[in-house]
Amino acid sequence: MTESDVSYLKSVIHDVPDYPIPGIIFRDITGILDDAKAFQLCIDTMKTRYQEQGITKVVGTEARGFLFGAPLALAMGVGFVPVRKPGKLPRETHSQTYELEYGQDTLEIHQDALTEDDVVLMVDDLLATGGTIEATTHLIRAVGAKVNHAVFVIGLPGLKGHERLHNLNVDVFSMVEYEGE
Amino acid sequence: MTESDVSYLKSVIHDVPDYPIPGIIFRDITGILDDAKAFQLCIDTMKTRYQEQGITKVVGTEARGFLFGAPLALAMGVGFVPVRKPGKLPRETHSQTYELEYGQDTLEIHQDALTEDDVVLMVDDLLATGGTIEATTHLIRAVGAKVNHAVFVIGLPGLKGHERLHNLNVDVFSMVEYEGE
Repeated sequence: MTESDVSYLKSVIHDVPDYPIPGIIFRDITGILDDAKAFQLCIDTMKTRYQEQGITKVVGTEARGFLFGAPLALAMGVGFVPVRKPGKLPRETHSQTYELEYGQDTLEIHQDALTEDDVVLMVDDLLATGGTIEATTHLIRAVGAKVNHAVFVIGLPGLKGHERLHNLNVDVFSMVEYEGE
Repeated sequence: MTESDVSYLKSVIHDVPDYPIPGIIFRDITGILDDAKAFQLCIDTMKTRYQEQGITKVVGTEARGFLFGAPLALAMGVGFVPVRKPGKLPRETHSQTYELEYGQDTLEIHQDALTEDDVVLMVDDLLATGGTIEATTHLIRAVGAKVNHAVFVIGLPGLKGHERLHNLNVDVFSMVEYEGE
């Protein structure tokens, strides 16, 4: 990623003030999807970074993780594995419950989606506190696969998701970062 | 699509009996995602069929429509527009409520996602009764764009979604069909 690439992505990301609650600026990636050049830049950058890492599967979490994870898996020539909310995957699953600011949530993965031979790259649109990706890391490791890399279009380092994932031995790359939020 | 292509896709689609209710065979497309060759075949087939149709945007509906729609948009070099459940899109939206077998559901699209100059291709994993795609058609036309094509990995002609969409002047192509269900 050059500085010019980062500027270009920032120019198409919509900054939505006071969403979902007052004081928060929501970084809306629909502007990237809408711009074929920006979207392709994201996928190409991710592919270039990880193509020599022996990745055998890309895992993305419902729903925005599907938007970047599915194209990245195709670009890398490997399978894509969805992590979903409860009741959405029809076969036998592992599940992982994790804490939110208020309450908790659960994610599931098909039990046969990965093997001990798999080396996984996790993808999502945005890294904030990292709760979703931490839960996804546990799911992937519960089925015996290796995962040490997560990639995001947007990172918000102020929310400490990077440290949380480093503590799990997951290396993080986010293409566009916004400080102080 | 050759007969051999159809057979190959059917071989990786998981047939899950009695899901989500007894008597229903759920056609689980995670086996396509997991197989890079099958997944690429789907995207290539869709691209080849529509690349001369003047398509300017691909629209996919949360969440499985994202899995095929986002890669197809990239392959065709056009933008991808997500249709989502209420409260998920952060900017001004149009919404469309539609009837389910029990109750109703609502879908939303960003108001500025399409213009009158856009020619849209709708994508989803599976066409059953067609309620979701009918609602999506209305959303796209509400913002003034043209839409006359919908493509699916799987079609279940017995559930009459094809006729429902033809009545809306939407041409349907489904790559793999299962009769009598």
